[in-house]
Amino acid sequence: MKDINIILFDDFTTLDAMGPVEVFRCLEKMYEINFYSIDGKDVKSNSNLCIRTKPFSEIRNYDLAVIPGGMGTRSLVSDYYFIEKLKNICEKSENVLSVCTGSALLAKTGLLNGRKATSNKMALNWVIEQNNEVIWQKKARWVVDGKYYTSSGITAGIDMALGFVKDKISEDSARKIAIALEYIWNEDSENDEFAVK
Amino acid sequence: MKDINIILFDDFTTLDAMGPVEVFRCLEKMYEINFYSIDGKDVKSNSNLCIRTKPFSEIRNYDLAVIPGGMGTRSLVSDYYFIEKLKNICEKSENVLSVCTGSALLAKTGLLNGRKATSNKMALNWVIEQNNEVIWQKKARWVVDGKYYTSSGITAGIDMALGFVKDKISEDSARKIAIALEYIWNEDSENDEFAVK
Repeated sequence: MKDINIILFDDFTTLDAMGPVEVFRCLEKMYEINFYSIDGKDVKSNSNLCIRTKPFSEIRNYDLAVIPGGMGTRSLVSDYYFIEKLKNICEKSENVLSVCTGSALLAKTGLLNGRKATSNKMALNWVIEQNNEVIWQKKARWVVDGKYYTSSGITAGIDMALGFVKDKISEDSARKIAIALEYIWNEDSENDEFAVK
Repeated sequence: MKDINIILFDDFTTLDAMGPVEVFRCLEKMYEINFYSIDGKDVKSNSNLCIRTKPFSEIRNYDLAVIPGGMGTRSLVSDYYFIEKLKNICEKSENVLSVCTGSALLAKTGLLNGRKATSNKMALNWVIEQNNEVIWQKKARWVVDGKYYTSSGITAGIDMALGFVKDKISEDSARKIAIALEYIWNEDSENDEFAVK
């Protein structure tokens, strides 16, 4: 049994987190999902959803960290206490997945320096400004570099999570999950119709 | 400003609710989203997500109700106290949207009798057993009949919510939301590749 640690903060984008969560829930015999925030208080998403969380200090196993994006990242990129805590989690984690502007937070840790990554296409200029030592990919549904998976905006996180299942478990498993979600999987990570022309 | 009332219960499928929620969040100047359960206690989803809710008795305006599905529906279809409360909400609501096996709960209220509706394709036989006076559609991404919108499994709810925006606001608005979500909208409600052959 591996642990999936969902990293939450106020004003995160609900679906950035809940897309991958639903994919991994289909593998509930392999993964246990838990929701964490820096202080373990309730977190409110961009859609008024109030979620109970555990504090970062209670993360048990650093198997897979998932970092959503959202307007909450705009202030967090300048919160060095948060970024240091996030860096610590990401360094220890076997794999790290970010969705949307979650990659701006990940970039701020420095752990993406010299690595390829992507982000939300509407917010890409702001994301690039956060750290230009990352090799930002302007056209990609999602990008894999080492243990880091970064996806484009919001629903691209579902495609990336299915891609992660394909890479780590099997293509058959990813396809079965897509069918269970009645989801038409965009399985080519390079096919990005939302890239700015 | 209209109210969107998300109807939650233990062991609902996270993405059934959060897909439409993210679509409607993009219209935050028009809609306020709130999360309700029968008693206003915390609700735990199928993916270990613990959500704070308000009780049904605190619903303010009966504009739009959204009913997710999930394994929690299996016992709720026999919970006549819950079904009566749900019926009361749905009767008063201007529109009712269900995702996945949420339509089994809606069917139990009797309000779909003589109406067309659909549901999760893997669970369709069980859903049909709940009420055979509904005109169940075995091949549909989503179905509209009067004020009722019912969708197929999980991610079909995103397509239905975009279809609702198209019907009630404009096609342009629905397209802009799909782009903001970087979502490839399956906009034909009759195109259902998950229908059982």
